[in-house]
Amino acid sequence: MYKKYKDLLSKRADIKGAIALLSWDQEVFMPREGASFRAKQLATLSGIAHEMFTSQQTGELLEQLIHDRLLSSDELKNVKETMNEFSKSRKLSKEFVEKRSETISDAFQNWLKARSFNDFKTFLPSLEKLVDIKRKEAELIGFDEHPYDALLDEYEPDEKTSNISKVFEDLRQKLPPLLKAIKDMPQVEDRFLKKKYDKDKQWEFGLYLLKQMGYDFDAGRQDISEHPFTITFNPLDVRVTTRINENDFNNMTFSCIHEGGHALYEQGIPSSNYGLPSGESISLGVHESQSRLWENNIGRSLPYWKANYGKLQNIFPTNLGHVTLQEFYRAINKVQSSLIRTEADELTYHFHIMIRFEIEKMLIEGTLEAKDARDMWNDLYDKYLGVKVPDDKNGILQDIHWSHGSFGYFPTYSLGSFYAAQFHEKAKEEISDLQLEITSGNLTPLLTWLREKIHRHGKLYKASELCQMVTGEPLNLDYFMRYAEKKYMKIYGFKKM
Amino acid sequence: MYKKYKDLLSKRADIKGAIALLSWDQEVFMPREGASFRAKQLATLSGIAHEMFTSQQTGELLEQLIHDRLLSSDELKNVKETMNEFSKSRKLSKEFVEKRSETISDAFQNWLKARSFNDFKTFLPSLEKLVDIKRKEAELIGFDEHPYDALLDEYEPDEKTSNISKVFEDLRQKLPPLLKAIKDMPQVEDRFLKKKYDKDKQWEFGLYLLKQMGYDFDAGRQDISEHPFTITFNPLDVRVTTRINENDFNNMTFSCIHEGGHALYEQGIPSSNYGLPSGESISLGVHESQSRLWENNIGRSLPYWKANYGKLQNIFPTNLGHVTLQEFYRAINKVQSSLIRTEADELTYHFHIMIRFEIEKMLIEGTLEAKDARDMWNDLYDKYLGVKVPDDKNGILQDIHWSHGSFGYFPTYSLGSFYAAQFHEKAKEEISDLQLEITSGNLTPLLTWLREKIHRHGKLYKASELCQMVTGEPLNLDYFMRYAEKKYMKIYGFKKM
Repeated sequence: MYKKYKDLLSKRADIKGAIALLSWDQEVFMPREGASFRAKQLATLSGIAHEMFTSQQTGELLEQLIHDRLLSSDELKNVKETMNEFSKSRKLSKEFVEKRSETISDAFQNWLKARSFNDFKTFLPSLEKLVDIKRKEAELIGFDEHPYDALLDEYEPDEKTSNISKVFEDLRQKLPPLLKAIKDMPQVEDRFLKKKYDKDKQWEFGLYLLKQMGYDFDAGRQDISEHPFTITFNPLDVRVTTRINENDFNNMTFSCIHEGGHALYEQGIPSSNYGLPSGESISLGVHESQSRLWENNIGRSLPYWKANYGKLQNIFPTNLGHVTLQEFYRAINKVQSSLIRTEADELTYHFHIMIRFEIEKMLIEGTLEAKDARDMWNDLYDKYLGVKVPDDKNGILQDIHWSHGSFGYFPTYSLGSFYAAQFHEKAKEEISDLQLEITSGNLTPLLTWLREKIHRHGKLYKASELCQMVTGEPLNLDYFMRYAEKKYMKIYGFKKM
Repeated sequence: MYKKYKDLLSKRADIKGAIALLSWDQEVFMPREGASFRAKQLATLSGIAHEMFTSQQTGELLEQLIHDRLLSSDELKNVKETMNEFSKSRKLSKEFVEKRSETISDAFQNWLKARSFNDFKTFLPSLEKLVDIKRKEAELIGFDEHPYDALLDEYEPDEKTSNISKVFEDLRQKLPPLLKAIKDMPQVEDRFLKKKYDKDKQWEFGLYLLKQMGYDFDAGRQDISEHPFTITFNPLDVRVTTRINENDFNNMTFSCIHEGGHALYEQGIPSSNYGLPSGESISLGVHESQSRLWENNIGRSLPYWKANYGKLQNIFPTNLGHVTLQEFYRAINKVQSSLIRTEADELTYHFHIMIRFEIEKMLIEGTLEAKDARDMWNDLYDKYLGVKVPDDKNGILQDIHWSHGSFGYFPTYSLGSFYAAQFHEKAKEEISDLQLEITSGNLTPLLTWLREKIHRHGKLYKASELCQMVTGEPLNLDYFMRYAEKKYMKIYGFKKM
């Protein structure tokens, strides 16, 4: 009977894999005119997957299995997790799921259009529809404290809006003194990162970094898209995308490492668990812990560039030949309030998230109307980051998430950073000479540790359980703060805050 | 009720579109390791599409509709055609369809492997399985005269093995005297076509030709694959692939034009008929009539190159600067027995098809075993074309078709050429100054004529009906023979045969 359950989930994973391919293609290769039929195709497949999963037979099968005493403890965990998802999915009708899928596809096309027109109003009708449908979704799924909880649950199961608000409140106390200390010191020179970096050479360098991290190109590939992302069609086909800005070295490099981190997580989940909870990632927070650990804790560290800077200088001798490793390291870690989330430094980054979190929360609870979201955005950027938003492309239209119907996703980025700092600290404790290995370009010990401690478990644990298991304590913001203070004290040269 | 029918077929088309994307990606971008799960995904979706279409509800709906007196004549034609397909599909179980899909996906991977090893034996186990499953399919579908009829029906509805045998018999009488006359004349010089033609420049030139033909890049795109093909995800997303050989100018150019011809047909079918028979092509024979008309009757004609040769000389001045238009025209039409079907001239081409047709027929009727197919292939190449096959890659492993489970496909290429000649003759009669328009690079009148006469009807007519409608008579080999004799008499300079 467990076999029957596995087969069912495996077929469902087949359909989800097809949906993922349709989505990937939509963002990477699809010709313009293909959009409307693609939206329909995505909706139909979403409906089929939903219908198959929420059928009465599925319910009966799960009901029987949950009382099956022959199941191993991991098997029972799988069944229980599926049961959870089943109960949640049953609350949404096939029609609702199809409509949601079509709304999202249309919204994505309008977002692309709005970006090219640099005009929020082009996107507004879609945003209104999205907010409506996500509010409806929250209502259908149900919640105890806050409607946003119901949406958050899709990305960060068992997390609460109130808890995230508290974490951000905490951060809002602790981060400003550090930022102030940084601001009071001489600023970092990073203009050489804005020179012209040839597209093809950047592309090759990105592939090199991915290979060095351990990304398996026989089970994945990289392409170009408007907004970088990682997507899994099946455990042996996990793809990443990137974008290249010839006048900004950081842009592609750190998005490559970031997506590479996501992809390594997906490639590290056992393919034998295809379709099962144990074959999935835990949560987006944990996912982001992987991408952000690679991007920031490793990819923006001195040992990492000790290993790679020589090669980089050889590729771009005119731009970097006379820049020392220290100068380069300081430049890629320059702290400065800015407009674009994906290009932000790892400190002010969290204000970008806070802004999105607050706006989402208000939209979903109904205290902000979609039409006022742009003004709110611009106000909050002024308030938290002290920057004026010059236009929509560099403002509210910069992120793909809402056009994907992803409300509740953003806070997981910050959670990811905090998990990352905590995991990284433990990794340094447990892997002998980790920093030395990294300095010599050997990233295998770290990957092996992450595979062993995190990847291989799939979704057999909750994020909070995993954190406890790996680090011996619950998520603790202090790890991130200590990491940040130590790092930036050195970079900016202040002694205390 | 007709609305319900349209919705059903439209959902089915959604799934088929996803299947097409999974297949396209498999050949264009998929990383190596992704193959096994991709096979599963394709099988699952094929099963779902099949199950949805062959359900009892579909049968009841069609039964009611077929007696609905309010339907227009086109609507009734759609329903009848769907009814035909329904009856046929009902003969295959979901399990059979899934198994067939998985067998094909595996076979495709093994074909790729076998090609890289240049070893038929690597592919043999797959070929055996494919023959088994196609024989089983023929048996399940049923046939009056020959099991091959049942397979042929998928590609060329209402065509019979016996009739195709007769056409080839006819050709076997009429073609050799022409080939003999050619052989007796001084041969054509084409070594300049084998010089090095830069990959990127070829690629750009191919895109130019496609645009000139009228291929809509907003509703399609071109990529590279091992074997060129055209694929439709939906009417507004029709993609082509090509391959580039730097030492063979013909290879990419004529495959571009060929696939472009297929794609123009698909782009010309009204998108409002999505999912309906009137939204599909008639048959592969008619499909090939479009690709081969563009490739040979137009793409290998003097007027076409009068329009394009100057540009081509500018792109490749070293290779072609001193080659006259006449010399170039003769070279691209050089007749010579050869090994590779897709690179064959338009006369000896049909022997390549005959060989495949005979082998397929024998495999399916059981008079040839898969293990002996290679020897048979090599023998027939010697017998019909007088060429020795040096290895499997240039022999039995050259075509993708069998690895795709396509048995019964090949003869449609020859039918396509014969239809093409007949259609082209009529087009010249009905379009004023067609040759002059082509000479000036204006291909629009021809495309408009093809759209009006052929494309827009979808599958509302049978191939034989369409041929009668467009040309006033049934398929007649004489058009092809007259076209060929006239063209090659001029090129090779003989007066009579």
